[in-house]
Amino acid sequence: MTGAAPTSTRSPRPQAARREALRVRVRAAGLDGLLVTDLVNVRYLTGFTGSNGALLLAATDDAGSRFGTDGRYTIQAAAEVPDVPPLIERATALALAARASALGIRRLGFESDAVTVDAHAALSAAAEGATLERAPGLVAQLRMIKDDTEIEAIRRACAIADNALTDLLDAGGVRAGRTEREIALDLEFRMRALGADGPAFDAIVAAGPNSAIPHHSPSDAPLRPGDLLKLDFGALVGGYHSDMTRTLVLGRAADWQRELYALVHGAQAAGCAAVEAGVPAADVDAASREPITAAGRGPEFLHGLGHGVGLQIHEAPALSAASKDVLEAGMVVTVEPGVYLAGRGGVRIEDTLVVPGAGPAETLTGFTKDLVEVA
Amino acid sequence: MTGAAPTSTRSPRPQAARREALRVRVRAAGLDGLLVTDLVNVRYLTGFTGSNGALLLAATDDAGSRFGTDGRYTIQAAAEVPDVPPLIERATALALAARASALGIRRLGFESDAVTVDAHAALSAAAEGATLERAPGLVAQLRMIKDDTEIEAIRRACAIADNALTDLLDAGGVRAGRTEREIALDLEFRMRALGADGPAFDAIVAAGPNSAIPHHSPSDAPLRPGDLLKLDFGALVGGYHSDMTRTLVLGRAADWQRELYALVHGAQAAGCAAVEAGVPAADVDAASREPITAAGRGPEFLHGLGHGVGLQIHEAPALSAASKDVLEAGMVVTVEPGVYLAGRGGVRIEDTLVVPGAGPAETLTGFTKDLVEVA
Repeated sequence: MTGAAPTSTRSPRPQAARREALRVRVRAAGLDGLLVTDLVNVRYLTGFTGSNGALLLAATDDAGSRFGTDGRYTIQAAAEVPDVPPLIERATALALAARASALGIRRLGFESDAVTVDAHAALSAAAEGATLERAPGLVAQLRMIKDDTEIEAIRRACAIADNALTDLLDAGGVRAGRTEREIALDLEFRMRALGADGPAFDAIVAAGPNSAIPHHSPSDAPLRPGDLLKLDFGALVGGYHSDMTRTLVLGRAADWQRELYALVHGAQAAGCAAVEAGVPAADVDAASREPITAAGRGPEFLHGLGHGVGLQIHEAPALSAASKDVLEAGMVVTVEPGVYLAGRGGVRIEDTLVVPGAGPAETLTGFTKDLVEVA
Repeated sequence: MTGAAPTSTRSPRPQAARREALRVRVRAAGLDGLLVTDLVNVRYLTGFTGSNGALLLAATDDAGSRFGTDGRYTIQAAAEVPDVPPLIERATALALAARASALGIRRLGFESDAVTVDAHAALSAAAEGATLERAPGLVAQLRMIKDDTEIEAIRRACAIADNALTDLLDAGGVRAGRTEREIALDLEFRMRALGADGPAFDAIVAAGPNSAIPHHSPSDAPLRPGDLLKLDFGALVGGYHSDMTRTLVLGRAADWQRELYALVHGAQAAGCAAVEAGVPAADVDAASREPITAAGRGPEFLHGLGHGVGLQIHEAPALSAASKDVLEAGMVVTVEPGVYLAGRGGVRIEDTLVVPGAGPAETLTGFTKDLVEVA
């Protein structure tokens, strides 16, 4: 005997909820629809992971919307985007624009911060019966606040990066004689073996004087005893990125290295402590920058404090002096002060944090921030 | 006693020659300068590999030009771009636009196929004293024809991909029970170990019915005896990509697999044979498509025949029915017909070739195209 069939409790796909939230903004902008062509935004709103896709979002509902892609992705689109009617056409965005007026969309927003000048001209010509209106940033605003599935993916990505660095050190993978490039490769291999879909970005591995170059590309230079070693890397999990920087020393730290590390360590802690909902992002930057400036090292902190992390490694909000963003619960941001002494070496320490609804921020990158002297 | 100092025979950097070639096109377009903001084009013209850079190219010479980047890249820019005066500013493109008129540039071209509608508005406002004019594709046209240093990088990338696949098979890495994802990871690890900077793109590994999905993402599905196994992958070397597809069979091929393979193999050979300077790219597509259409499989060849390869994995020219490009000596293109039987399996075979000045095309991807039945 079998019991009664259970009632379906399948929760709606998060993508459907995101489209609903976007509709509120589209209507508030006085638009009948939005043409989403930025591929990362398309993924966020539909779940589509292919290389050619676009969404014509009707302000009314999904039934009046269309997901566009080309014939290579017919099967994949049916699996990944079951809840928006498809439109299969090679010149996807143009085909969607042409379809807008038939779907009752007259005022059609487009992503003016992603669409090129030439593409806009072509879309305008194709969208007979509809007028294209600038509508930048509508999806980016939504994407700043992560939902639980997103935070979980970033949490997993951060854990993988943590574990890869622990494994690398346990295996003796950081030692004099190895090259920056070998260590970058080793870290990336370990993240993949631990389940990452790939690295979040090309790892920065910078030893000795190279550590004073904020975005140094790993070279064939071998590590030497006494080097500072800056590792800035992350994992990619289900489209979501992690981002962490640690700076180690090969052997016993010299006094100047220890002082530099302590300065950045303190600044990073101050930045993390300032991460709170309702706080202007510029204030977080200032909180972390203050001790560095007080030590006379302000000019050697060459960049902003941090950035949002999600489907892109750099996304809104910006944590910098010029930022107009205000932190909100559910944002995921980095805090990464650095001080770079040209020709000598630099220290950067970076965590990825979730802005909390209340209480202290959750730090997703767990590897120790105490100074590690690699024996 | 030392002899007379030798005369410097250092050849100019290829980037300098590219800028000179671009100047000819800029002047022919009636412009005083070109603002290059597409990062791949910036790399092509300057050698800069960072994540924020732009080039204000004066139609006159490099002395009147400026390379822009921000403070993170001051050291790197001096090393990578020694031959264009720098301008260090966070909002690089805006700063360059603002500088144009002081450098005597009144008619300033911009990459209208890369600059967004919003960025264009900001640039127009910043470029006081200069007018921005649409100038799409000027660098892309140059980039279609590869110079020797570029072909050499692509040749190395192709050789690495060849060797990785050979090594994978020799090591018994392709076998029933392994997952698509494991094989993708293994291939990518091997390419890195052989000297690649990374994979050219996320490898497509598609087994059994998945091989009928042209752009399938590797899953955790295990390979089974009798599966077709489609591998589409490449290596990245010095910024340049390789691209190759091979389709294998696990065990003895069934008759339908053998027939399908022979059909695509013949079509691919016909496409390669048609690659010649002066030939319209659409004719190459037609030459390869003809036997597939004749066999009644035309509707199951779901995509164009190929594309240019270089600093991007997909770049001009397009090899498709709709292409208006004509092949020229020094282009590097793929030839990759495929036939996809939904629910059963698909075969694609892809090479990367150099369009020759005379004689047959050079095929850079050397792995056998005979049907491989993996024991």
